[in-house]
Amino acid sequence: MTPQTANSIGGEAAVPPASGPQLLVLEDGLDLVSGKRLERVEITYETWGELDETASNVIFVSHALTGDSHVAAGIGPGGAEKPGWWDPMVGPGKTFDTRKYFIVCSNVLGGCSGTTGPGSLDPSTGKPYGLDFPLVTIEDMVAAQVALLDRLGIDKALAVVGGSVGGMQSLAWAKLYSERVRACIGVATTPRLAAQAIGFNEVGRQAILADPNFNGGDYHDGPQPEQGLAIARMVGHITYLSDESMRNKFGRRLQDRDGHAFDFVTEFEVESYLAHQGRKFVERFDANTYLYMTKAMDYFDLASGFDSVAEALADSPVRWLLLTFTSDWLFPTYQTQGLVDALRATGREVSFAEIPSPYGHDAFLLEPEEQRRYIEPFLTRALAEARFEAGVAEAGDML
Amino acid sequence: MTPQTANSIGGEAAVPPASGPQLLVLEDGLDLVSGKRLERVEITYETWGELDETASNVIFVSHALTGDSHVAAGIGPGGAEKPGWWDPMVGPGKTFDTRKYFIVCSNVLGGCSGTTGPGSLDPSTGKPYGLDFPLVTIEDMVAAQVALLDRLGIDKALAVVGGSVGGMQSLAWAKLYSERVRACIGVATTPRLAAQAIGFNEVGRQAILADPNFNGGDYHDGPQPEQGLAIARMVGHITYLSDESMRNKFGRRLQDRDGHAFDFVTEFEVESYLAHQGRKFVERFDANTYLYMTKAMDYFDLASGFDSVAEALADSPVRWLLLTFTSDWLFPTYQTQGLVDALRATGREVSFAEIPSPYGHDAFLLEPEEQRRYIEPFLTRALAEARFEAGVAEAGDML
Repeated sequence: MTPQTANSIGGEAAVPPASGPQLLVLEDGLDLVSGKRLERVEITYETWGELDETASNVIFVSHALTGDSHVAAGIGPGGAEKPGWWDPMVGPGKTFDTRKYFIVCSNVLGGCSGTTGPGSLDPSTGKPYGLDFPLVTIEDMVAAQVALLDRLGIDKALAVVGGSVGGMQSLAWAKLYSERVRACIGVATTPRLAAQAIGFNEVGRQAILADPNFNGGDYHDGPQPEQGLAIARMVGHITYLSDESMRNKFGRRLQDRDGHAFDFVTEFEVESYLAHQGRKFVERFDANTYLYMTKAMDYFDLASGFDSVAEALADSPVRWLLLTFTSDWLFPTYQTQGLVDALRATGREVSFAEIPSPYGHDAFLLEPEEQRRYIEPFLTRALAEARFEAGVAEAGDML
Repeated sequence: MTPQTANSIGGEAAVPPASGPQLLVLEDGLDLVSGKRLERVEITYETWGELDETASNVIFVSHALTGDSHVAAGIGPGGAEKPGWWDPMVGPGKTFDTRKYFIVCSNVLGGCSGTTGPGSLDPSTGKPYGLDFPLVTIEDMVAAQVALLDRLGIDKALAVVGGSVGGMQSLAWAKLYSERVRACIGVATTPRLAAQAIGFNEVGRQAILADPNFNGGDYHDGPQPEQGLAIARMVGHITYLSDESMRNKFGRRLQDRDGHAFDFVTEFEVESYLAHQGRKFVERFDANTYLYMTKAMDYFDLASGFDSVAEALADSPVRWLLLTFTSDWLFPTYQTQGLVDALRATGREVSFAEIPSPYGHDAFLLEPEEQRRYIEPFLTRALAEARFEAGVAEAGDML
């Protein structure tokens, strides 16, 4: 925490306010990319920090596959005790400095942490939607986020940011709502999944669908498809790490054993870790939402509706910061590099860095200092520009 | 096919003999690494070519995870019509030239293609073993192969060769039976799996164990655990390919569709491919064997019983040829490189090459010409040495 950030916008308050979970209802519903329509949408969101006088300091954070609106440990109602999923990045004096910026994060459409999804009650039946919930896309998720900004009275976000699937949402913002956002920060993300990642998603889905408790998605009154969901999480976790980080973390060490059991029990530490991740996951996540989220990932293609990514972004004046990690093989650098090349070929200014890290895809959660090096100055400049345009700062502030 | 190979050992026969599937019974049973014992072991094996006058030309091929004894299209009984799993490599005039070498391949111990495994009848109950079958190791599989050589009256193999798990068996030969083999060829293999590969194996096992039809391994009279086994195969297949080969093969193409279905059906070609691989697999493979084979893979450590691989191989005079592939991320090159370094540090001569290929782990099945470049001269020299030692060739033949 530097004196500059500690004393910047947000005033003298040592601890900026956090809203705790808030509920917004879109009574008018939402039209979806599929052509279907949700008649009523609830959105759970949280905010941190204070909106400045010109509403120039809004940063919208989008969460990844299994995240929620609780991006940082809240100081306000309901959030004080629970750690946030991006605590190393969001808070007073941190990269997304809550003394300087007004941070907004909402649970995605189709989610299971307070926003309308397959576990919500279908108003037409009074029972959980299950698989009657319409498929939602990354673009639908972003439309719900834009509706949230509308209701908060915010015309234009300073930045949208997200890692992984959250980054897909940030890219979709830059394409579809470029008048509503100044800067896009995509971390460990991609303009589209390649076949390998779609394949892993499909394995997870098949594991859920094969669980006898899945019952066609209608498991809300009975046992949950825990085994299937746990298996999906296990395979997911392998893809979030890297060969190197798994060797460093587990090697071939056995769990509480000297020799092999010669039986089908958990023996290697890596098996124990994956089993633990699976068990933990089913306590907090909904199997149907896992199906819907992975399908939205698979469908996402930043170029969709256009002949190329360059064309899709041709009219978008958004500023870009794109970060990848060397050992991320699920969202590998070459994919973001393709986006960078397309933007640069059309004369766009793009900040791009591949950060050395052994942590694989998870690096966006585990490398806060390396990300800060790029994000902090990028945001500082964007904020200076926004304040200049709003007439509350001098041109020299942008230098 | 060069004139030399076509006219070498094996005589004038244009088509060397193939045995078709043969059954060998080890009536004395087999003691296992686990301390348990199999009272009676059946081994299904096949041979191609002819044993030369000094039994100097024997090449033992070990198969990979789901292979069988049918390494090449047989000309003999029962094998004529069925393609072999390594047809591009084994046959008249090919790298493993059946006009020159006597090729032997057996289904592994614990397998499901004619050798005693968990699907075999337990002599003590008259019913299939299921999970009462003892865990078998790579070393146990090799012990069964050595017993087969004994019964064939072969004192010393010219070479053992295998890809992937087959290569693990070749390495175990070189460590445990170095007096029974002259040369070891390991392709796309490893002296031990790292945590990532163990993790993927565990995901496959959990998918099988979670299938309600698995029934504790006792599914022989009822429905098979097809869904679990298919999911295991799907995740396996992703690991056998590479990101690049999957992009080239499938990209993001949809299967028989123009646009998205917005439903949980098979849409992407990669999904269709994986589903097809899963369906095909359950028709030919036993779920219990999948559990046993993956466990044997996980357990295998060439250094086991010693402080290092170098010590484990200190007394082994075996010649080495080790091949890896650039895009193989399941059995990555650095693992074989570690073995090469250990052997070279103890003054051993090792031929080693990393072959450029986009095909991932499957490259050992798909890059016959690149492998031939290294294997053919290696075998030619080993055969000349063997024949010189047997007194049927001049020293000059080795040059």
